Amino acid sequence: MSKTNAGFFFEDYRIGQMIRHAVPRTVGQGEQALYHALYPARHALYSSDEFARSCGLRSAPLDDLIAFHTVFGKTVPDISLNARANLGYAEGRWLSPVWPGDTLRAESEVIGLKQNSNGKTGVVWVRTTGRNQHGEAVLSYVRWVMVRKRDPQADAPQAVVPDLVDAVAPGDLTVPRGLTFANYDFAAAGEPHRLGDYSVGEIIDHIDAVTVEEAEHMMATRLWQNTAKVHFDVTQREDGKRLIYGGHVISMARALSFNGLANAQMIVGLNGGAHANPCFAGDTVRAWSEVLDTAETDAPGVGAIRLRLVAATSDAPGLKDKDGRYLPHVLLDLDYWALLPA
Amino acid sequence: MSKTNAGFFFEDYRIGQMIRHAVPRTVGQGEQALYHALYPARHALYSSDEFARSCGLRSAPLDDLIAFHTVFGKTVPDISLNARANLGYAEGRWLSPVWPGDTLRAESEVIGLKQNSNGKTGVVWVRTTGRNQHGEAVLSYVRWVMVRKRDPQADAPQAVVPDLVDAVAPGDLTVPRGLTFANYDFAAAGEPHRLGDYSVGEIIDHIDAVTVEEAEHMMATRLWQNTAKVHFDVTQREDGKRLIYGGHVISMARALSFNGLANAQMIVGLNGGAHANPCFAGDTVRAWSEVLDTAETDAPGVGAIRLRLVAATSDAPGLKDKDGRYLPHVLLDLDYWALLPA
Amino acid sequence: MSKTNAGFFFEDYRIGQMIRHAVPRTVGQGEQALYHALYPARHALYSSDEFARSCGLRSAPLDDLIAFHTVFGKTVPDISLNARANLGYAEGRWLSPVWPGDTLRAESEVIGLKQNSNGKTGVVWVRTTGRNQHGEAVLSYVRWVMVRKRDPQADAPQAVVPDLVDAVAPGDLTVPRGLTFANYDFAAAGEPHRLGDYSVGEIIDHIDAVTVEEAEHMMATRLWQNTAKVHFDVTQREDGKRLIYGGHVISMARALSFNGLANAQMIVGLNGGAHANPCFAGDTVRAWSEVLDTAETDAPGVGAIRLRLVAATSDAPGLKDKDGRYLPHVLLDLDYWALLPA
Repeated sequence: MSKTNAGFFFEDYRIGQMIRHAVPRTVGQGEQALYHALYPARHALYSSDEFARSCGLRSAPLDDLIAFHTVFGKTVPDISLNARANLGYAEGRWLSPVWPGDTLRAESEVIGLKQNSNGKTGVVWVRTTGRNQHGEAVLSYVRWVMVRKRDPQADAPQAVVPDLVDAVAPGDLTVPRGLTFANYDFAAAGEPHRLGDYSVGEIIDHIDAVTVEEAEHMMATRLWQNTAKVHFDVTQREDGKRLIYGGHVISMARALSFNGLANAQMIVGLNGGAHANPCFAGDTVRAWSEVLDTAETDAPGVGAIRLRLVAATSDAPGLKDKDGRYLPHVLLDLDYWALLPA
Repeated sequence: MSKTNAGFFFEDYRIGQMIRHAVPRTVGQGEQALYHALYPARHALYSSDEFARSCGLRSAPLDDLIAFHTVFGKTVPDISLNARANLGYAEGRWLSPVWPGDTLRAESEVIGLKQNSNGKTGVVWVRTTGRNQHGEAVLSYVRWVMVRKRDPQADAPQAVVPDLVDAVAPGDLTVPRGLTFANYDFAAAGEPHRLGDYSVGEIIDHIDAVTVEEAEHMMATRLWQNTAKVHFDVTQREDGKRLIYGGHVISMARALSFNGLANAQMIVGLNGGAHANPCFAGDTVRAWSEVLDTAETDAPGVGAIRLRLVAATSDAPGLKDKDGRYLPHVLLDLDYWALLPA
Repeated sequence: MSKTNAGFFFEDYRIGQMIRHAVPRTVGQGEQALYHALYPARHALYSSDEFARSCGLRSAPLDDLIAFHTVFGKTVPDISLNARANLGYAEGRWLSPVWPGDTLRAESEVIGLKQNSNGKTGVVWVRTTGRNQHGEAVLSYVRWVMVRKRDPQADAPQAVVPDLVDAVAPGDLTVPRGLTFANYDFAAAGEPHRLGDYSVGEIIDHIDAVTVEEAEHMMATRLWQNTAKVHFDVTQREDGKRLIYGGHVISMARALSFNGLANAQMIVGLNGGAHANPCFAGDTVRAWSEVLDTAETDAPGVGAIRLRLVAATSDAPGLKDKDGRYLPHVLLDLDYWALLPA
């Protein structure tokens, strides 16, 4: 019997199946420091314990995307080791901050299965939940991937396509306990803009850009214990390139968005996302955002803003061509909710 | 109204203006670990809590240059985003160690303004102070930069050129409270040399060298939240090169200086400094030091040494040509005070 | 007198000489985070405080190889600065876990000396011990290196070749106090294999591979304060290449071995090791293991497995040619003991 993990194939998934992912992970101040080294992250709530306390938290939590990447990384050996494509995200909700010293684990429930017409692959939908050492859910999201079949002759399962919402409703967003922006220090945060200063449809060019390197994306991807070979091993692709983990682009774009969205402090919802084109070392990543919606919350001074975050390798205009396909310079099209001062 | 920061132009500064820089930063053991990964740092006081305790401190402080880079990084969006050149430093004093968990913020006072004769740029002098979460000053220094004018037709302000000392007087250096070298462990520190073993005019070749990489200098520069585009984005210069942050060269040279100056433990004064030539990835950085002065302090066994620290891309001799211009292989010419056993 | 360290030459060593290595080092959660960024490390005992507690430990210790690299790095300025070759390891034993916040120091005793017949070099054997701030030994191993003579005309010392065991006897392995695998969570650890599932002679291909980068190996090597010039300075070799620290390859191969040996949690013995060929940036490192032996321990549910760990730059078969020389694609041949559930 082989001792190594060959990953799951399409036939291995069943509707309702619960997969407990391996290797819990304690994350701490070291991961936070590395996050600041790997991305130009500057949102004050994650940069300063003092600022976080002035917002009612006990200290700076770990970046919301550290939680996302860590939970996502856990799922790779069971969900996407044999995946051909990462097709989408939906219904993502951050449910509790992750504090330095917390230990995260992850589990996924199979909620959808649909074999492709070619008979060689199928689409698997899973709802993944990350939990801390107290068993509290810190993050939940749906992801769907295209997975190879072990045996192309195997029967197709009955197709089940989950009914997913287009966007998390504002009332379903979780504001961390105690969070207040009532005494928000705009000068310390870096920008004066409140929720009311943003208009739906407004586009913000974040100006800054970063040319990415192999060492950086591999260090980041390893830090989240994401083991997908294609990120590390030049013999995996015919062109000898290492594909950059899509989450690296998400974090880079989110950090770049500080310039114009410095007060969009906490990510609380992930409505959808597409990795439009692959990213490789040497690419210069830029970002722009579009305001999609705004909402109130019950917490003092805390509003919510729904944003489209686009990463691209040039500042050429446009997102999709006339046939609805992403333009070649677009890397990421992400739709998320963040909390900012009302 | 644009949401993003365009930075200050020469006309935006006024004598006496106080600029409170954004985004306080909590620094900790993770930053210290990264510092040891990014530079060949070996000074025992920062490497070992036990050694620091034997010198009267509560634990190893964060490297003095972590304090400098963090404070400096805060000032970039307000001082040097539109700077053409970083012209000099003076009157730098480290006033209190930075401990893991401290939160640093920075503010600058404009103390000098002088428009250049071309009418397109001007020189701005600022005195920057870094403070911890208790409001205590941890670092203060003067920096001057050449900044572009937004409007070349704008009137020149009345020229004010601050009167800066050539070097911080020994009596103005701050020795950290409790510091003692009375029981200094030379074997643990790595070298036997006391203050009396160094002579003014003595030159020390630090022998070791490091060939620098893009991923390293970008990680370092991001860690200090320094956002100057030219360090990260290959589209910023016509030659497609990323300019390495001058502070990266300072830290590299200081770390290399361990070999011969292992006992020059704490940096307490910055008398001046010039980034003589730009540094790029692929350069091999070497360093040598010249002893400029020595002094006593009131603390037990603690002396002070004034050093010129030179970084260069080759071991060719010389610093300046006959016209007083830095030779092409010279990267850095720094003048600082350090504490070492008397 | 030169202030810098020229290192020891062969004539400087005497049998029985005790060398106390400089610069104690406090290691913590930041180093652990960096370890996870630099290597694809996933063994649960080092990844999760919760998992470590379920095994009777107070928290996750620092990776065993952090202890090894830190202690090894301390010895470089005194043992291998003038070394031509790192010839072997033996009798390595991990004696106590290293916890975040511990301060490590190292000392070496010269236990063997033998001049080579060419008269220009000699072999030095040292037994190195790493200790924590309580004076407890955490690690002990024998290493031998070929060192240059300062003066080829100097007399040869009387040859003393130590008598070293081929492998640490199972009864000489130290199981950390309190360790138990009685309630081992195989699902959390990532694989179901117990000691009894492995057979002597079994070969495990770990499948995964990593293409290594300059920035990564230099950051790792600096983190352990290893100052050997050849790792950092392109002017040291005629081919302009930086030689990757052999320990970087050890850590990479060990981390890759998770896939098939996820339950080989703790390294407790180092029986031998050869750096078969040099490793350079751009190489793609793979690994395979051979089961050499198994043994029982007195701790609840804890068994020991003796493994050969081989790193190579391709998946070509074979280890040595018919003359007993390592094949060109082999980087490392390591022989170690690990603890895993019985």
